[in-house]
Amino acid sequence: MTRKKAHLLGFVQHGVMNHASTMWAHPQDKIGYSFARPEYWRDLGRIMERGLFDAMFIADELAPYTTYQGSSDAVVRYAAQFPVHDPAAVVPIVGAFTKHLGIGITLSTSFIRPYQMVRQLSTLDHLTGGRVGWNIVTSYSKSEFQAMGLENLTPRDKRYEVVEEYMQLCYQLWDSWDDDAISYDRSTGVFADPSKVREVDFQGRYFRSRGRSFVMPSPQRRPVLWQAGSSEQGRDFAARHAESVFGVFPTVTTMRAYADDIRARADRAGRDPSQLKLIFGLQTVVDRSRDRAVEKYEEFRSLIRIESALAIMSGHTGVDFSTLDLDDDVADVDAQGIRGLFDAILQKNDGKPVTVREAAELYGMAMGAPTAVGTPADVADEMEHYLDEGGCDGFMLLATNVPGCFVDIAELVVPELQRRGRYRQRYPGTTLRESLQEY
Amino acid sequence: MTRKKAHLLGFVQHGVMNHASTMWAHPQDKIGYSFARPEYWRDLGRIMERGLFDAMFIADELAPYTTYQGSSDAVVRYAAQFPVHDPAAVVPIVGAFTKHLGIGITLSTSFIRPYQMVRQLSTLDHLTGGRVGWNIVTSYSKSEFQAMGLENLTPRDKRYEVVEEYMQLCYQLWDSWDDDAISYDRSTGVFADPSKVREVDFQGRYFRSRGRSFVMPSPQRRPVLWQAGSSEQGRDFAARHAESVFGVFPTVTTMRAYADDIRARADRAGRDPSQLKLIFGLQTVVDRSRDRAVEKYEEFRSLIRIESALAIMSGHTGVDFSTLDLDDDVADVDAQGIRGLFDAILQKNDGKPVTVREAAELYGMAMGAPTAVGTPADVADEMEHYLDEGGCDGFMLLATNVPGCFVDIAELVVPELQRRGRYRQRYPGTTLRESLQEY
Repeated sequence: MTRKKAHLLGFVQHGVMNHASTMWAHPQDKIGYSFARPEYWRDLGRIMERGLFDAMFIADELAPYTTYQGSSDAVVRYAAQFPVHDPAAVVPIVGAFTKHLGIGITLSTSFIRPYQMVRQLSTLDHLTGGRVGWNIVTSYSKSEFQAMGLENLTPRDKRYEVVEEYMQLCYQLWDSWDDDAISYDRSTGVFADPSKVREVDFQGRYFRSRGRSFVMPSPQRRPVLWQAGSSEQGRDFAARHAESVFGVFPTVTTMRAYADDIRARADRAGRDPSQLKLIFGLQTVVDRSRDRAVEKYEEFRSLIRIESALAIMSGHTGVDFSTLDLDDDVADVDAQGIRGLFDAILQKNDGKPVTVREAAELYGMAMGAPTAVGTPADVADEMEHYLDEGGCDGFMLLATNVPGCFVDIAELVVPELQRRGRYRQRYPGTTLRESLQEY
Repeated sequence: MTRKKAHLLGFVQHGVMNHASTMWAHPQDKIGYSFARPEYWRDLGRIMERGLFDAMFIADELAPYTTYQGSSDAVVRYAAQFPVHDPAAVVPIVGAFTKHLGIGITLSTSFIRPYQMVRQLSTLDHLTGGRVGWNIVTSYSKSEFQAMGLENLTPRDKRYEVVEEYMQLCYQLWDSWDDDAISYDRSTGVFADPSKVREVDFQGRYFRSRGRSFVMPSPQRRPVLWQAGSSEQGRDFAARHAESVFGVFPTVTTMRAYADDIRARADRAGRDPSQLKLIFGLQTVVDRSRDRAVEKYEEFRSLIRIESALAIMSGHTGVDFSTLDLDDDVADVDAQGIRGLFDAILQKNDGKPVTVREAAELYGMAMGAPTAVGTPADVADEMEHYLDEGGCDGFMLLATNVPGCFVDIAELVVPELQRRGRYRQRYPGTTLRESLQEY
């Protein structure tokens, strides 16, 4: 059996916080206000490209969470996924200052019409030379709909029916220009042949669109499609549409169960399961000295403000954890929302009871993903374990201090993986799809 | 009386065509497919910054026009404002490769919710260090609503009532963070004081929004507000809200009438009219030799394909000109839509009858704006005339061949204006507002 090679992605947000609570308070964290400036994104992109990452992956929400205490007060106070600026605006910057790094962007189908979504994504795919991935999300948070001034009219069980139709319309638009449509003939003044740019006339149950797509076919034609499906319907959707799936699982057992399930679904949907790349959340705290790595991990943990972690966990799960006692057993909580992620915390403790406080501390650190702490060899060992036993194809790297944690990956972990034949030596091409499908 | 200095802006689109029909067929036009690549925007931004322009101004539509022959066939064939990629995506690129140049972006209030609009614009204002202008438009074209799959439910006479409310909500969001809200205190983990980031609770007739703005106050806090109001209501809206107004008038008389009217409205709205900058459309064809300039102008005119011009003119006015004979008198046409622009063509001919063909040729060249043809001194003379007699503060420069026409402005016309004391020698600061309000 050939040794499976790893894909690496850097998981970030366009804000002060990435995915670990209050890490901006670490003395070595360099984010400050700089996240709002282009130099930050130029440098972060270059670091990830030096590490031969498949992509920078930019998460997003659309409004501050208000679940905890029915307010966004704690969210504001601790910068708990707040503020979060528009992720689309940094894609062209990262693209302009790198040559190979992909850029995954989270855009919600709830507030952008399909025609506009196709235009936006294809524009970005052009400007990056074919390096855009779309993390397909449907908004669920009440605070997002309130901020937009809209009602969420989609019942939860219809969510994937709606987005299924959304995708069909996007595909029609992406595929509507023939490869030879453009002639660009200066002598006749004829730019394109109208018979080769088909008008889309889509009359669906949830979406309608009539007209020609306004954007030339981009280098990848369709962006790489990403999804993080955890529910039954979400997994089926991912198995049908996604080229890569992102999931967070705390243990190798839960990883493997998910991997087997998703690949079986892809197979049933008539796809080659090996083409669907499974990328799982992983946090790393790495140092040449194991003792120093452990020390750093403790430093990070000590930064977490419990209220910040509770506010995030409340936002993600839909449960207001301020109504519970910190010593309550978290297993008693009826967590709606993204139940899968929340379950992860329970599983992490190998079935032993977990208090709300312990859950929040784990969630605040890595949202339920494992944290690999140690030397480059230790971290590479753990990655190999997840690749071989957990069934994943690579890792979505959750940040601690930024950009330091990604520098550590690029300079310490990547060379170790390469030595073991577990990582690429160079990019295989210029598009994100080429990187993702390389192995 | 001090000599009024000129503001210059470069008027472009994110596509093959800017605002003159079929100019992409000119042997010296360099757009090609490169408009979809970051290098094109980097270079164009640098040229305009070398010319000390206030801003690059990016126009937009959201779908191809279908007015002419009830189809977008001609639009596709001649690249008549087709394709047009997402303008927002190039703003961060122009910003990252320039230091002073402003970037005006056209975004429609019809398909983006106010909460999201504020987030997008403030994000861009951050990433450019305070150099973003928003050209406020409400969509009117049937093809745009069809592509989005929505009905245009706003009656024409309610249009400005709706956008008035839209602006009030945007202002509340932009003003909701106090200047001293952020403490960024690493020792306590406290990022901001919730009492200084006010929750907006807006319950209007057309828009609602509840929540805290998701984006830090940007360098300009609000982007510079631009508007192109021609109707009665549009002029009143511009007089109340805009920091700069863009208009197209074919003669010094029509310029002056508009300037006097808008300034009187601003005065009645309680504003200092001199703070409202009037920027009028102007095309230039310049060469050190006057004969060569005239020759170049004829070259450009010969490129225009009548069908392309008719398709654009139909799209802008809402009249299907394919139903008319090319020799018909254009004065008989009942032009709805942006009537002001269309009237301009009639006025250009000093009251003499104009055929549909002649109108299309003029419209195809410069949308009814004057074209200044000649030496740098000739062009500067004409600019001075419009500044002094036409009452404008500067010019929106319509392109011919790109980027050559902007290079000519920067290298030939700007030095001439500077010699005459009619132009800045350097940028006054770092934000667009500073440039615009310098004189």
